[in-house]
Order: sequence, then structure tokens, then C-alpha cells
Amino acid sequence: MSTPGPTPPPRTASALVIGNELLSGKVEEANVAVLARALRGLGVQLERVVMVPDDVDLIAHEVKELSSRFDFLFTSGGVGPTHDDVTVEGVAKAFGTNVVESPELAKMLRDHYGERCTDGHLRMALVPEGAALEVSPEVRWPTIRYANTWLLPGVPEIFRMKLPVAVARIGADVAFVSRAVFTKMDEGDLRPLLDAVVAGFPDVGVGSYPKWQDPTYRTKLTFDGRDVARVDAAKDAFLALLPAGEPQRVD
Amino acid sequence: MSTPGPTPPPRTASALVIGNELLSGKVEEANVAVLARALRGLGVQLERVVMVPDDVDLIAHEVKELSSRFDFLFTSGGVGPTHDDVTVEGVAKAFGTNVVESPELAKMLRDHYGERCTDGHLRMALVPEGAALEVSPEVRWPTIRYANTWLLPGVPEIFRMKLPVAVARIGADVAFVSRAVFTKMDEGDLRPLLDAVVAGFPDVGVGSYPKWQDPTYRTKLTFDGRDVARVDAAKDAFLALLPAGEPQRVD
Repeated sequence: MSTPGPTPPPRTASALVIGNELLSGKVEEANVAVLARALRGLGVQLERVVMVPDDVDLIAHEVKELSSRFDFLFTSGGVGPTHDDVTVEGVAKAFGTNVVESPELAKMLRDHYGERCTDGHLRMALVPEGAALEVSPEVRWPTIRYANTWLLPGVPEIFRMKLPVAVARIGADVAFVSRAVFTKMDEGDLRPLLDAVVAGFPDVGVGSYPKWQDPTYRTKLTFDGRDVARVDAAKDAFLALLPAGEPQRVD
Repeated sequence: MSTPGPTPPPRTASALVIGNELLSGKVEEANVAVLARALRGLGVQLERVVMVPDDVDLIAHEVKELSSRFDFLFTSGGVGPTHDDVTVEGVAKAFGTNVVESPELAKMLRDHYGERCTDGHLRMALVPEGAALEVSPEVRWPTIRYANTWLLPGVPEIFRMKLPVAVARIGADVAFVSRAVFTKMDEGDLRPLLDAVVAGFPDVGVGSYPKWQDPTYRTKLTFDGRDVARVDAAKDAFLALLPAGEPQRVD
């Protein structure tokens, strides 16, 4: 009987967040945390996020780099029909392909808008040549995917509607687990305790997060990994180092 | 009498957002929009944001690139005393300098913590050698600056407390102004109108933002720049193209 080996390294992902409105502070970015949590559930680690303006060349440059460095790339924003929606063009340029009209999307747009359908609406039928159109039984309006790059919309409600299509397609392997310990100690006093745990558990991610003016705790410690036994052992090793009266809470 | 020349190009900025907790979705990023808005008021354009984990080499690589490509770099996060706070080390590495204890910060920490002061607390006195300590009459706990790179904390409440020190030091030239028009038209129908305005006002940033299920409007159009007369002219040119019954509102 073979024993199970160590958990293999996780698949990796990156995100490219596109939009002048985010870089000017008119709109607060709201999709990265949602994406990150969905990916963790699949065992995929989000490793890099880049935010750029609505500029074809900047988008193309980033898509080329991020799609080659990580297993997956998710873009957010720039997929509508107006002059500032240039993500499809940027992705096509990154992969050295053309922008073409998808007959399938054009038909869906014509069916949807009927006699009101304009050239402006049909601009939403443009895709990088060779792209896949991903759907699910629940989400029938297609999401554009080119190789490992998923083109998601920036509008948060639609981003959340479409993300499950990517989640279903990518599939889970070993999900991340996370434990949290809340204490009233400050980070300066916690440092030697944390150093001991970090040294003993190099395979567990240990985080320390001070909270500003919360009456119930001062610092939250987190223990993260994909091997639940190791994560729990690191958390228990930390708990054993705490003085009397601690912790305040364990999640 | 000389006439005023065209508005010079704006100063540029970038942000490096540091923290595993953001990339895992445990915490939602909350500082970029605040930074962006403060910079716009100074006439500084935020052009790029990068989010990376708590990793010295990744931070050093990004600091080197962003501080050289833009007039200013703001880092957010990783300035506490625990093992996962490695921003000072990353910045020092980027600029090819050492990490040293600041006697001024060490004294402030000893005065603050008194007999409770530990080596852990004193870790917050470490700075890149040659860094400046920036204060203001309102914010007397120093913010570390190395050349054009400001090291701001990740905790949103403290980020907001410290940002005014950087704002005062950087100073304003010509601030950005922004106008907004709200319509019930959809982006497909708006496209030709926007294309006309964009062609006529290449110096004004024109944005189009669909709203999901709002009874009062469907699309928000924005007109941005540093020459208020041109921004207003672009907005007025757009208003003149709208059909009867529009706009719903102008801000």
C-alpha cells in the first residue's frame, strides 16, 4: 500500500484589471477578492494582479506576460461596445491573432435586440480569432476564452454571474484551507512566537493582521495551506505558545 | 501679453499593493481608490497598480521598475514587525541599499512602549539606509520615503491617516476635473455619439459605464481632464447630440 505523497504545488493564476475609472478612483475595484476566493476553493493560487488603463498596447503587453507566467489569466473590464472597451483587441494582439466577428454572438445579439440592433451593439460580437465561447446551463450568454485567458466583464454583478462558468471549466483539485486565531497581543510581542511556527512549518502560510480599534481582539493570525493536517498542526503549535488568557477566538 | 499655453502632461504615479491576504481574498483591497482620488486632486495621474505577495524579491523587482517608470510610487502594506512584513527589505534591495535601524524611530518606539518594548517592536525602526522620515504637524509618527517611493501601511485607517503627509509634500499643480452625464440609452446606441466626441476632443478622457439595474439611468458618461474649458466643451458637445428626453442628470 502506497502512502500519499506531499500535496503538489498549486496551479497559479493572475488577474488583469482594466479601466481608467479604477485608476482615477471614480469606481472602487470589486472583483479581485471574489475571484481570489473562488480560485482558492479550486486549489488555484492567485499570485499577481495588475491594473492598467483602457489602452490596447498596455493590455496586450500584460496579457502576453501574465498568460505565459501563470496557469490562468482572468481579465476584468473593457468588454462592452464603446470606444474605451479595448480588451478583445488587446488580447488578440497579445496572442498575435485578429479580431473577427463571431457568427454565434452576432446571431444572439440580433435575436436579443431585434430591429433595434445597431453596429454599436454588434461590436459585442467581436472576439479574438480562435477564441472559445464558454457557457453553462445556468449562464447561457457566452464568456470569451482564448487559450488560458478568460475575458470577464468589469461590472461586478455580471462578473459574479459569469465567474461560475470559469470555475466549472477549470475544476477543483485540492482546495486551500485556512484557520484563524484572534488575540489581544500586539504584533511586536507576537513576533518571536510566529517566527517559531514559521520555522517549524515552512509549508504553511502564516499571516499576521493587526486590527484597528476592535474591542474583541488586536491581531488576527492565519494559517493557510492545502494539507489540512499540516495547517491544523501549525495552528495548534501556535496556540501552545500563547500565554494564559489567550486566544480570544479560533475559527 | 502672453496667452497661457496648453496644460502640460500630468505627473504620473504607480502603486504597489503588498499582501498575501489580498491575493487570497481574505481581505478586500481598500487603499487604491483613496490614493487615486487624492492624487487626482494634485493633478497626478495614477497609471499602474500591481499587487504582489509578501516576497522580498518580487517587491524589490516591482519597486525598481515602478519607481523608475513613474514620477511617484506608493507602496501599501508590509510595514509591521512580523515575519510577513518585508516591504522595507524589498525597497532597500530595489535601491541597492542596506536595512538599518533609524535612531529616531527607535527612540520613538522606546518612548511609546516603555518597559514593554521588545526586539519585535524595534523591528518597526528599520528603514532603507538613506530614507527620509516624513511628518506633518497633524501626523507626527513618521512615514518612510526613499527617493520617490512612499512606504504606506496596509491597514486602511492608518493609510488614510498617513496619506495627507505625502499629499502635502507632493503638492498640487493643475487638478483634474470630471463631469458626468447620466442617460437611459444603452452603450450600443451611445457608441456613434461618443465616437464623435472622442474624435473632436482627443485631449479629454471620455468614459462610458453601464449601470446594472438602476431605475434612474442605464449609462454614465464621464469627461475628464485638467483643462476645465475643454472638459466642459466636450460634455456640452455630447449633450448636444442626445435625443429629446435626455440626459437624465448632469453632475
